Amino acid sequence: MPVEETATAKPAPKRVRKGLVIINTGNGKGKSTAAFGVMLRAWGRGMKVCAVQFIKSEKVKYGEQLAAEKLGIEMVPAGRGFTWTSKDLSEDAAMARHGWDTARERVLGGEYDVVVLDEITYPIRYGWLDVNEVLDVLKRRPPMVHVILTGRNAQPELVEFADLVTEMTQVKHPYHDQGIKAQKGVEF
Amino acid sequence: MPVEETATAKPAPKRVRKGLVIINTGNGKGKSTAAFGVMLRAWGRGMKVCAVQFIKSEKVKYGEQLAAEKLGIEMVPAGRGFTWTSKDLSEDAAMARHGWDTARERVLGGEYDVVVLDEITYPIRYGWLDVNEVLDVLKRRPPMVHVILTGRNAQPELVEFADLVTEMTQVKHPYHDQGIKAQKGVEF
Repeated sequence: MPVEETATAKPAPKRVRKGLVIINTGNGKGKSTAAFGVMLRAWGRGMKVCAVQFIKSEKVKYGEQLAAEKLGIEMVPAGRGFTWTSKDLSEDAAMARHGWDTARERVLGGEYDVVVLDEITYPIRYGWLDVNEVLDVLKRRPPMVHVILTGRNAQPELVEFADLVTEMTQVKHPYHDQGIKAQKGVEF
Repeated sequence: MPVEETATAKPAPKRVRKGLVIINTGNGKGKSTAAFGVMLRAWGRGMKVCAVQFIKSEKVKYGEQLAAEKLGIEMVPAGRGFTWTSKDLSEDAAMARHGWDTARERVLGGEYDVVVLDEITYPIRYGWLDVNEVLDVLKRRPPMVHVILTGRNAQPELVEFADLVTEMTQVKHPYHDQGIKAQKGVEF
């Protein structure tokens, strides 16, 4: 019978605790929800967790935000959704910058055990945040702080620095084409 | 500016609500945590959620189980961990069967909006559960019940039937080889 996914199966000379930089990327589902699942797990152990959501708008309440409110977890919206209809994107850029100010403070402050930077790859891609600034904050963070970054097309600089990178790939996702709408509670 | 991940971007003649069968598979991280994230999201919207964990042992408290207890979410352990040291696997098989009895009842009962069958691919693979029996329950479930199945090497029969299948692929996971142990709260 094979032994699978036992992190301690391979003996190592020393086992150190360390804050991890985790990236969930790829075109599939599950990038953000996996980050929320880790937040939930850490919260279950009494750790202090928070998230900055770089795309989610404060005008719409998503399931995870409703859950976070109930749990007393800070989840900061810092965007206006994925459909940028505005011709003037300066407001989006300003919101991303403001979200980043909050995120940087949370990551560097050392008060939080886990900080999720949800969908941060997009504001970097659109030039609203500087990837080197993000990288600098990750490098300077207190050693036990875990940071989870999500979003498609994770920047190579971030992937290079990360401890764990997972790509979520869509194998099958036909139902939106079948007239089935996105399902409340499960997808948002 | 591209429009991404907007489920409603493509117009369709009718938009129906429907319980989804979702599979998170692949060798990477995030299969279970993404399921827990969806549970959290649904719970945030007041939906009724539960999970059966086919590998997790009742003897060990995982972060997600501690969180579920705090939240009043039923999360049923139905295994003994991944390291099968026992020569007699009949107990593991019996536990899987017992977990499946609970799972079947939850899925068919219609009381739950979201049922997570965490790591169910393994007991199927080891012959403790019959994939056709699982498939039959999925087919016969009340139409609004969402079911999320996780585990490596999802069975083709399940993939064929599922509405949404995501593969989690490990891009980078070097730290276990660097002497860094699995991190409590984040990885378990």
